[in-house]
Amino acid sequence: MRLFAYQVDGGRALGVSLDGITYHPVAELAPDLPRETEALLGTANALTHLATQLAAAPAGAPMAALALLPFLERPNALWALALNFKTHIKETGLTTSLDHPHLFLRTVASYVGADQPILAPPEEVARAFDYEGELGVVIGKPGRHIPRERALEHVAGYTCINEGSVREYQMHNRQFGLGKNFEASGSYGPWLMTPDEFGEVAQRNIVTRVNGVVRQRSGLDDLLIDVAATVAYLSQGYTLRPGDMIAMGTPGALPPAEDDAEGRDLSRQFGPFPTPGLVHMRPGDIVEVEIAGLGVLRNPIVGDEPARYRAG
Amino acid sequence: MRLFAYQVDGGRALGVSLDGITYHPVAELAPDLPRETEALLGTANALTHLATQLAAAPAGAPMAALALLPFLERPNALWALALNFKTHIKETGLTTSLDHPHLFLRTVASYVGADQPILAPPEEVARAFDYEGELGVVIGKPGRHIPRERALEHVAGYTCINEGSVREYQMHNRQFGLGKNFEASGSYGPWLMTPDEFGEVAQRNIVTRVNGVVRQRSGLDDLLIDVAATVAYLSQGYTLRPGDMIAMGTPGALPPAEDDAEGRDLSRQFGPFPTPGLVHMRPGDIVEVEIAGLGVLRNPIVGDEPARYRAG
Repeated sequence: MRLFAYQVDGGRALGVSLDGITYHPVAELAPDLPRETEALLGTANALTHLATQLAAAPAGAPMAALALLPFLERPNALWALALNFKTHIKETGLTTSLDHPHLFLRTVASYVGADQPILAPPEEVARAFDYEGELGVVIGKPGRHIPRERALEHVAGYTCINEGSVREYQMHNRQFGLGKNFEASGSYGPWLMTPDEFGEVAQRNIVTRVNGVVRQRSGLDDLLIDVAATVAYLSQGYTLRPGDMIAMGTPGALPPAEDDAEGRDLSRQFGPFPTPGLVHMRPGDIVEVEIAGLGVLRNPIVGDEPARYRAG
Repeated sequence: MRLFAYQVDGGRALGVSLDGITYHPVAELAPDLPRETEALLGTANALTHLATQLAAAPAGAPMAALALLPFLERPNALWALALNFKTHIKETGLTTSLDHPHLFLRTVASYVGADQPILAPPEEVARAFDYEGELGVVIGKPGRHIPRERALEHVAGYTCINEGSVREYQMHNRQFGLGKNFEASGSYGPWLMTPDEFGEVAQRNIVTRVNGVVRQRSGLDDLLIDVAATVAYLSQGYTLRPGDMIAMGTPGALPPAEDDAEGRDLSRQFGPFPTPGLVHMRPGDIVEVEIAGLGVLRNPIVGDEPARYRAG
């Protein structure tokens, strides 16, 4: 099952879908369930109940007309892992620990949903604005000191993430800070897919495309620190909340194809990590993160407004 | 004026006070204002209106009976600066940039309010659990690309922060990650004080006491990167939101007093930064962060539950 949020007059609603083509509003299938995603995910058996109702429901309405939104509303934590694929470690030349996940946080304002514009910083502010296609893991059942072997019981589902990063700012100091938190610089979606439908993470592949050209491709069995280890680690420190999301890290750039002038022209690359095959996200681009079997997270890249003072 | 949140039957309410001794509920003074802090701070002239109403109101109720809460509810960003005092840089031996603030994020779950228990990790998990007394800056008016000279117009007020840190986890990898985000490991409060009452940051002092013994003391004129520069920097990346809060960094430990066995006994110190005068926070302690003229943020330290699996 897929759980997602979409725009309705004056607000948002949650919907569920079996096939990603037709859907039912959560409020119609299960009027007693909470209307906020985090509260819904924290309600025991809510997703199972929705799946049962959905299976018995008549044909749904088409999803194509919906304007999707980020499916989380007020998450406690939007975690992300740095340097969790060997190919990305190699291209950055950065170091990481293999014993503990390399964790940082993003803000709500840094993410949009599927099909919404990702904002590229104005060129006078930054130019090394990079996609990072990642698997997103969303917590359902709360938990503390979770053993690795029970960690996946706490996962409500998976999604695609474009963990968009502004490299110049990311390297301003030793913590990534603002460089991972520019306005609408990343995205997640299109939906949360429940584990029963998603299956084994290690059997899935992730691909990132810019204007249709594949720029990242990797199996998710290549994660240095896997989902269960990351969930278990975080739960050593605090009680994981429904709606906490973890971006599991990005693979490295693919080598450029023979005819790929853009991917091999390092004079068009900026920032600290010039890499053959890497291109930056620029206004006018369409960037897609696809996890096989889950779906495609597609966003247009739009130039943010010029760097002039705006208040209020 | 001081703005704060407190417990009421089944939820929370906002109150305002001139003196920190008596108060009026916001809902009585100004029934039309939003009941959520972030929305209130984002309402033009809301604080000015409240101050006018408060000045004209009859005697308020005593604050002493209130159970305070963190005054933010669903903030977009809880920023913190690392290494923003020379004395702390020296004791850690870490490096920072003097050109750009050294920024990381904390989660909502990592902070409690005044008088609420701060949780010390069980000893089998971590022992180097340290106070960090800091000035907190809370954004009111939204803004982007804010010039330094206009940055303070966007500040709704100031507060005290204990930016409690679990050093072993903070050093697990290159980003501070979970080490700055243990459950209820820090606090802020007791209230937001508006700038008209707080005055000039650089003229204020900050003190941290553990069981009455002063462990940190500094003028806030010692900030390497000041409030205006930090606000301006962050606004280069995204539109600052009402309720975004910035912890401005902590000063170093004071040298131990002549009779201070605990502060000089390094055999009782753990973690990466053994420092004469530093003590860790332990169950049974009372830790206070005081900013002169603003107030005292006081929290008891309570041992978190043992490290065993808990779900649901």
